[in-house]
Amino acid sequence: MKAVVKHHRGYGAQIQTVEIPQINEDEVLIKVKATSICGTDVHIYKWDEWSESRVNPPYVFGHEFSGEVVEKGSKVKNVDYGDSVSAETHIVCGKCSQCLTGKAHICKYTKIIGVDTRGCFAEYVALPAANLWKNPKEMLYDVAAIQEPMGNAVHTVLSGDVIGKTVAIIGCGPIGLMAVGVAKAAGAAQVIALDINNYRLNLAKQMGATSVINSKNEEPLQAVKQLTNGDGVDVVCEMSGHPIAMNQGFRMVTNGGRVSILSLPVRPVELDVTNDIVFKGITVKGITGRKMFETWQQVSALLHSGQVNVKPIITHHFSLEEFEKGFELMIEGNCGKVVLYP
Amino acid sequence: MKAVVKHHRGYGAQIQTVEIPQINEDEVLIKVKATSICGTDVHIYKWDEWSESRVNPPYVFGHEFSGEVVEKGSKVKNVDYGDSVSAETHIVCGKCSQCLTGKAHICKYTKIIGVDTRGCFAEYVALPAANLWKNPKEMLYDVAAIQEPMGNAVHTVLSGDVIGKTVAIIGCGPIGLMAVGVAKAAGAAQVIALDINNYRLNLAKQMGATSVINSKNEEPLQAVKQLTNGDGVDVVCEMSGHPIAMNQGFRMVTNGGRVSILSLPVRPVELDVTNDIVFKGITVKGITGRKMFETWQQVSALLHSGQVNVKPIITHHFSLEEFEKGFELMIEGNCGKVVLYP
Amino acid sequence: MKAVVKHHRGYGAQIQTVEIPQINEDEVLIKVKATSICGTDVHIYKWDEWSESRVNPPYVFGHEFSGEVVEKGSKVKNVDYGDSVSAETHIVCGKCSQCLTGKAHICKYTKIIGVDTRGCFAEYVALPAANLWKNPKEMLYDVAAIQEPMGNAVHTVLSGDVIGKTVAIIGCGPIGLMAVGVAKAAGAAQVIALDINNYRLNLAKQMGATSVINSKNEEPLQAVKQLTNGDGVDVVCEMSGHPIAMNQGFRMVTNGGRVSILSLPVRPVELDVTNDIVFKGITVKGITGRKMFETWQQVSALLHSGQVNVKPIITHHFSLEEFEKGFELMIEGNCGKVVLYP
Amino acid sequence: MKAVVKHHRGYGAQIQTVEIPQINEDEVLIKVKATSICGTDVHIYKWDEWSESRVNPPYVFGHEFSGEVVEKGSKVKNVDYGDSVSAETHIVCGKCSQCLTGKAHICKYTKIIGVDTRGCFAEYVALPAANLWKNPKEMLYDVAAIQEPMGNAVHTVLSGDVIGKTVAIIGCGPIGLMAVGVAKAAGAAQVIALDINNYRLNLAKQMGATSVINSKNEEPLQAVKQLTNGDGVDVVCEMSGHPIAMNQGFRMVTNGGRVSILSLPVRPVELDVTNDIVFKGITVKGITGRKMFETWQQVSALLHSGQVNVKPIITHHFSLEEFEKGFELMIEGNCGKVVLYP
Repeated sequence: MKAVVKHHRGYGAQIQTVEIPQINEDEVLIKVKATSICGTDVHIYKWDEWSESRVNPPYVFGHEFSGEVVEKGSKVKNVDYGDSVSAETHIVCGKCSQCLTGKAHICKYTKIIGVDTRGCFAEYVALPAANLWKNPKEMLYDVAAIQEPMGNAVHTVLSGDVIGKTVAIIGCGPIGLMAVGVAKAAGAAQVIALDINNYRLNLAKQMGATSVINSKNEEPLQAVKQLTNGDGVDVVCEMSGHPIAMNQGFRMVTNGGRVSILSLPVRPVELDVTNDIVFKGITVKGITGRKMFETWQQVSALLHSGQVNVKPIITHHFSLEEFEKGFELMIEGNCGKVVLYP
Repeated sequence: MKAVVKHHRGYGAQIQTVEIPQINEDEVLIKVKATSICGTDVHIYKWDEWSESRVNPPYVFGHEFSGEVVEKGSKVKNVDYGDSVSAETHIVCGKCSQCLTGKAHICKYTKIIGVDTRGCFAEYVALPAANLWKNPKEMLYDVAAIQEPMGNAVHTVLSGDVIGKTVAIIGCGPIGLMAVGVAKAAGAAQVIALDINNYRLNLAKQMGATSVINSKNEEPLQAVKQLTNGDGVDVVCEMSGHPIAMNQGFRMVTNGGRVSILSLPVRPVELDVTNDIVFKGITVKGITGRKMFETWQQVSALLHSGQVNVKPIITHHFSLEEFEKGFELMIEGNCGKVVLYP
Repeated sequence: MKAVVKHHRGYGAQIQTVEIPQINEDEVLIKVKATSICGTDVHIYKWDEWSESRVNPPYVFGHEFSGEVVEKGSKVKNVDYGDSVSAETHIVCGKCSQCLTGKAHICKYTKIIGVDTRGCFAEYVALPAANLWKNPKEMLYDVAAIQEPMGNAVHTVLSGDVIGKTVAIIGCGPIGLMAVGVAKAAGAAQVIALDINNYRLNLAKQMGATSVINSKNEEPLQAVKQLTNGDGVDVVCEMSGHPIAMNQGFRMVTNGGRVSILSLPVRPVELDVTNDIVFKGITVKGITGRKMFETWQQVSALLHSGQVNVKPIITHHFSLEEFEKGFELMIEGNCGKVVLYP
Repeated sequence: MKAVVKHHRGYGAQIQTVEIPQINEDEVLIKVKATSICGTDVHIYKWDEWSESRVNPPYVFGHEFSGEVVEKGSKVKNVDYGDSVSAETHIVCGKCSQCLTGKAHICKYTKIIGVDTRGCFAEYVALPAANLWKNPKEMLYDVAAIQEPMGNAVHTVLSGDVIGKTVAIIGCGPIGLMAVGVAKAAGAAQVIALDINNYRLNLAKQMGATSVINSKNEEPLQAVKQLTNGDGVDVVCEMSGHPIAMNQGFRMVTNGGRVSILSLPVRPVELDVTNDIVFKGITVKGITGRKMFETWQQVSALLHSGQVNVKPIITHHFSLEEFEKGFELMIEGNCGKVVLYP
């Protein structure tokens, strides 16, 4: 079969012909119908420090997808031939304290599909049945493919109350854009999107942002103050990873508010704990992965009901062979989500 | 000034000319701009058993309104001349265990405006400053007037999670209709409205119900089962007060779901505690009043942001003098909210 | 091996010699070290209506135990030879909406060990590895055996806040007695135990109840009122199943309080929904099973740390052969927990 | 009357004779029975940068106390002559978004008794009736006096679940010591106290710490790892204010755990957001003040029920005239709580 292979410890990747993977009794073989490019895939493609330390080429990468079940192991009961499925990308241990108490998404022994195991940038992918999520028949494959990152957005936005509140989304990459839509669907009264890229701020408006702020052109704290009668926002979803933007987030949140952080700043960040966290009595949430499978249920319901429409975010569709176009677009930044079709 | 007075211990009420009320140092005089008729007012109008035991005619009744501050006591600091205000109708003691711990809405010593004290079906009303809620300047007076009952809807629907869930609203009187809109705004994937009145079910559709069930024509449990792939609903908002409908609510909720009850059945209700509450591991919430003032903040934000549009529910507008038309409509049931203008 | 067998569709049970069970690749064989008698076992022993409709003699019953792993299937990874284990008695489907969202304890397709499958009143028991809970090496076998019912107590008491609150435990069977200890360990300011059996009320005192009320001798509502300065209790744990006691529970709870129901009344119960649930703004929780495995973690920690001492509750120890003595004691009621040693 | 007056903008304070304060109609005059020294008072006494910028000598300082109501304004209804009272030290606006939604403790316009207004290091203190908390008659005056700082401990420890969990208290000043007792009373399975002062670690043991770590003598992360089978702690209460200790706290918390910060580091702190907050999926809570008045109710109940015994923490009792001894002890650090009697 065709697959996009991270072939060497350096920049780029290659289309290669590889064996269709074998499954064991607990696994399922899926014909990939659509797969999308994640920021993590871009790191691997560009081969940065993190990739150097974590992944082992040559291997097939990619982890966001939707597809059809074409083969299943003897023990598999949760899906059937022909089902449309996507997959949770965290493979967890099932035995640690976190796994045993409903927090498997922060299992200490997590392996990640497409990072630590063979991924889905291919015609077929083999996965543990326990990681699969069944999609409604009517869900389009490109929409179904981006449920995994949308799960990050949902997990972040819904890690506290949103209804009737003012929410700031800092950083409008694809997940930030989804977060705008989720906040709107969850009843936020105001959704303020912040970024320095006008292309993405424009998408934020399409996703329902009530205001957008280009932090390059406007002082964001001042702008937020004006939009909120001096009160600040109730909720900040930090998705930029920039220490300055993150500190602005902590400054713009009102007393008793919430800052949910999904981003991964590359270095420790200096925070004014006393004035921005303690005196304000705020709650800070670190967000990783998706609750297994509460978040998936929410994502599926929001998409299926039409409460969130992700169409504006899926800006580009390519064949798998054209993967390089997709990666270059992602590096450049003037895109939403890029979907590849094997 | 003109006022609608409950003039005797029997059916009906009268327009009379009464003194404009005096205020003390903690009170505010408000020129009433719009006032709406509540189910409670209808009980008083019809003079049922409850009214007989609770209210003392002759007095001005009514408690839902919006108006303009025209006079304020020497100690009043939270509102100003010219402010548009509405009011929380629970006057609470401020000293009991509930009041001291953020649960003033269930203060054991609550007095209710328009029931235990002089109300707002009049040109002017005098109220404790502590009960007032400031409205945004742009909010229309009829919309502002119905915030109090909408607070009941918001309090009921939001007494647990809603986003991505399936919500059944049993009983589509004005508060039930608002609940449909609130559930939709809060991100519910499905909102199923149940009633036996097609006029109101039609309004439910306009408020965003994804399905409506006329329980006279369709077996509601069967219908709900079909709409939910046999799973039942995640949330029931019981607003009918009928023992049979209430039991249907308990039966249609899925394991681990929630039944929030705002209605007031006139007699004790037989419930299958073992099968419908314990084995299903559900949560039941009794709902009364509005959280002071979290609920008001949510109501105001949902209306002001446009997340909920209550226009379809405000079906009739009359002058105060035409109050009898309003009451007769309410008794008959083919209306949403009826607003009176003094 | 020896086993207590429910041998016929009638009263009683028999010691018989049966085959040691075989395990499959996902199962574990456990040498039972201690096993205790549950109220459910008594129903089966006495052969009531429920048993008639649910269980299929002849079979080995019993589901509370502790023991040592002596054999494990090829796929089992979560326990090792020699581990001391107990087991969650709900065997769940793993695929339904509840199982996928952290609520497996209310899976609609639950099977119960010792009811729907072969149980632990025997020298050996074979169980799915996924149901096992590892005990600390130092935990005594009799204490470890009663973790399952203690899980019910923990789940009930901790289904809301307890610290600094006044808690009433209605019904002081073994689980009620454990609930007294759990409430005390969780920081309750007052724990009021109610029953009509002085033997059990005496055990309640030993478990830390700050007051006990024999509802036969004292009017419980009056007594509770006096103990709480007229306020009523913050939390009721209903463990009696009697409609009158249950209604008293709803009456004694204060506005905004909580009633958690673990008991299973045999018939529907008439409740004053309007006055006891809605106007009071209370929360009612139906409790079944144990959260898998949050509750087990709590139980284990409370016992292992000494925060709860269950020794006073384990009133009788017999050999497995003496099971009839144990059952007769349970039927009569003058006992706490009865432990059998194979 | 006698009072301890911060008489100049420099080190120290003086006993002076001043006028007994006058009360207005919303205020109460209290005869101070016991008053205790807070860390904030020590800052004012020593006259540091913060005091320089915030307080205006000459004035009577102090804010922790208990006393008897001897006079009350015409509008005061919540207390009576002879009542034993203590007081919440935050005087809040009552009008802002926080005050209106149950979060008055983080009102943006808070004034603090004894900092921004006249305090209680005196024979009498005049206070707004709305700030008073009634003590049970039987509560000792020294115990009642330290409820305000104990409220900080309660607010910090109980800002999330504790029962059955492992809790680390970093920094064992008086509030840290109270936190040890509160965590124990709340059902923590392990309470690990960390400090660099053996006198205080010894008090921590007396308050029920299951382990103490002197971070000067032992590597705290290593020690915590050993005490928790490598898992880390579930909850960290950060009360030291030291950036290194705070970072250790973030490192020792397990995935999905909680770090509640009451301390006020003097400078921004560098935190490893990616590894210590995001990947671990933890919750960080900034804690200030006491919930008004949920926290007071909890404090009173925990003390009155005997669930927490603060006697070991009240290490020194002096007459008001001996205030300097008390302050010097506090500066030196070898004390728990110091109580002064006017």
